[in-house]
Amino acid sequence: MRGVWLEQGRLSIRSDLARPRPAAGEARIRVTLAGVCGTDLELVRGYYPYTGIPGHEFVGVVDSCESEPELVGRRVVGEINAACGACATCRAGRPTHCPDRTVLGIVGRGGAFAEELVLPAANLHPVPDSVDDDAAVFAEPLAAAARILEQVAVAPGDRVVVVGAGRLGLLVAMVLARTGCRLTVVARHGDARRILADAGIDTIGSDEVAPGAWDVAVEASGSPGGFELARAALRPRGTLVLKSTYADRLSLDISRIVVDELTLVASRCGPFGEALRLLETGAVDPRPLIRGRHPLDRALDAFDAAARPGALKVLLVP
Amino acid sequence: MRGVWLEQGRLSIRSDLARPRPAAGEARIRVTLAGVCGTDLELVRGYYPYTGIPGHEFVGVVDSCESEPELVGRRVVGEINAACGACATCRAGRPTHCPDRTVLGIVGRGGAFAEELVLPAANLHPVPDSVDDDAAVFAEPLAAAARILEQVAVAPGDRVVVVGAGRLGLLVAMVLARTGCRLTVVARHGDARRILADAGIDTIGSDEVAPGAWDVAVEASGSPGGFELARAALRPRGTLVLKSTYADRLSLDISRIVVDELTLVASRCGPFGEALRLLETGAVDPRPLIRGRHPLDRALDAFDAAARPGALKVLLVP
Repeated sequence: MRGVWLEQGRLSIRSDLARPRPAAGEARIRVTLAGVCGTDLELVRGYYPYTGIPGHEFVGVVDSCESEPELVGRRVVGEINAACGACATCRAGRPTHCPDRTVLGIVGRGGAFAEELVLPAANLHPVPDSVDDDAAVFAEPLAAAARILEQVAVAPGDRVVVVGAGRLGLLVAMVLARTGCRLTVVARHGDARRILADAGIDTIGSDEVAPGAWDVAVEASGSPGGFELARAALRPRGTLVLKSTYADRLSLDISRIVVDELTLVASRCGPFGEALRLLETGAVDPRPLIRGRHPLDRALDAFDAAARPGALKVLLVP
Repeated sequence: MRGVWLEQGRLSIRSDLARPRPAAGEARIRVTLAGVCGTDLELVRGYYPYTGIPGHEFVGVVDSCESEPELVGRRVVGEINAACGACATCRAGRPTHCPDRTVLGIVGRGGAFAEELVLPAANLHPVPDSVDDDAAVFAEPLAAAARILEQVAVAPGDRVVVVGAGRLGLLVAMVLARTGCRLTVVARHGDARRILADAGIDTIGSDEVAPGAWDVAVEASGSPGGFELARAALRPRGTLVLKSTYADRLSLDISRIVVDELTLVASRCGPFGEALRLLETGAVDPRPLIRGRHPLDRALDAFDAAARPGALKVLLVP
C-alpha cells in the first residue's frame, strides 16, 4: 500500500508498504483523513527513535474485524495507545501508561499516514453521524485537551491563561472556555487570534501577561520561554499544566516553584468519549483550524506546511 | 543585645545589636533555643540577598506584648511569615504567600539567632507543658513536613519513597510513617539510618530504588541527583513532592515528566498546630536528631557543624 515512511529522521513516500495485518482482537481501518501533529514533527527531529509509518490523528472506516464484525463499515476514530491489558500498570487502571504498549505511529505500530492502519477493536470509537470527517479527525488532540479537566478542577470565575495558540493550544482554549472560567490565551499569530476572537475567547500578547495573577496556566507552546511565562503568570499555589513535550531538557528555577508552592500537572492523552461529545453537541468546533489538505503523494509538503511558525492543522488525504 | 549577623555572605558574632522593637500587634520573645536549618546555610551561600540576624526555628518565652498581655511569660513557638493581612493574597487565605510579608530571619525581619526577636502575636503558638524545649524547637520544620499531608492524599498502603535523610527528610519520614503508607527512605549516612531504624522506618541506598515502582516520591535532598532519582522512582501518574529549595537552576527532562503524566507538588511552610499535636501526643519525637548545642558566641562553629555532609540538627543556646 501507499504511505509515508520515517527512517533515521528522513521522510519518504512509498507505494511498496505491506498492508498491516490485524492480530487477534484488532481491526483494520481504511484511513479517510489524517492530521499532522506537533509530535509528528518532533519524531522527524528525533524526539523518539521511531522507524515506520508516522501519524496518529485519523478518522477512517473499519475494513475488517474478526472479533467485532459489527464494526465493519463503521466510521471510527481510535485511541492511540495499544496496551497489553495484563501488566500491573494496566491492572491498576492506567493502560495508556502500559510499559509494553505500542502507540499508533509513535512506538512500535505503523500509523495513520497510509492507506490503512490496524488498532485493537477496543480502541475504536464510532463517530456520530452528525460529526463530519473534518471535525472527527480532531478527536485525538481534542481528547488530549479535555484530559486537563480530568486532572485539574477549573471552576467558573477561575483566572486561566493558555500560553501558546498553536494546534493544541487552540483546542485547549476551546475546551476550557466551556467551564466558565475567565480565560485568556497568549497568541502571537493573527490567524490564531482571529479563530479565538470568533470563538469569543480573549487573547493577549506575551508582554501583556500580568505576573502572579492567574490561578491556572496551561503551557502549550513547547518552548522554554513559554514555560517561564506560564510559571511567572501564576499566583502562589497556582497550577501549571504541562501540555507540551520538549525535545530538549529545560533549565528551571525550582526555588521559585517551591517558594510559590506551585503544582505542576503533566497532561497527555485524554478521553475520546468526551471529545466526541464536544464535537457532537457543537460545544467545540475545531474545523476553523484546518489550513490545508494534501494527498499522500504530497505528504512532504504537508509536513513542511505544518512546520511553519503559526501553522495550524494540515490534513493528509490517503 | 548579642546575636549573629549576616552581611554579604559573611557571618559575625556581635554584641552591639539593637533590641528589636515590637510594632503594633507584635510580641517580643526571649529566645531559649534556636535550630540551624538548611535554609540558613543557603542564605550564607547567597540564596537570598539577606542582611541581618538569621534564624527562623526557635522556642522562647514572651517578654512583652501590648496587644495580648496574657501571652507574657508563655513559652511559644512562632510561624515565620509575617503577612500584611490586607492584600489580595492575604484576603484569598494565603498569608504565607503575601507579597509584602517579612519572614523571620530570611526577608526583612531579624531572626532567632539572637537573644530576642519580635513576631506578630498572631504568629505565636503556646507550647504544651508536656513538650520540652528540645522538642518544641522542631515545631517549624515539623510543620513544613506536615504540610505535605495538606497537599497530597497519602493513603495506607501507598508506596512512598523519601529521597534524602537530612534534617528535613527525617522529619518528613516521621510524619509520613503515621499514615500507614509503605514508606522507604533513601539514606546515605549511618547516623540517619540508625534514627530511622529506631523509628521503625525502612531505609535503602540510592542504588536500590526500583524505578517506576512508587506512588509518591518526596525530594528532600536539595540536589539535582536527588530530583532525578525521585522522578525516575515514580510510576506513571505518580506524585513528586518538592520539599527542598535549590540554590541553582535545575535542568529537567520535561518530556519524561509529561509522558509519565507526573504531578509535581511544591511544598513549603506548614501547620504549627498539627506540628505541636504530633509532638504533644508523641506521634513524632524529633529529639534524636539533635547533634550539638552551641552558645551564641560559638555560632560560627554551629554553622560549620550543620554544613558537614550528613549533619543533623545543631542548636544555638542564646
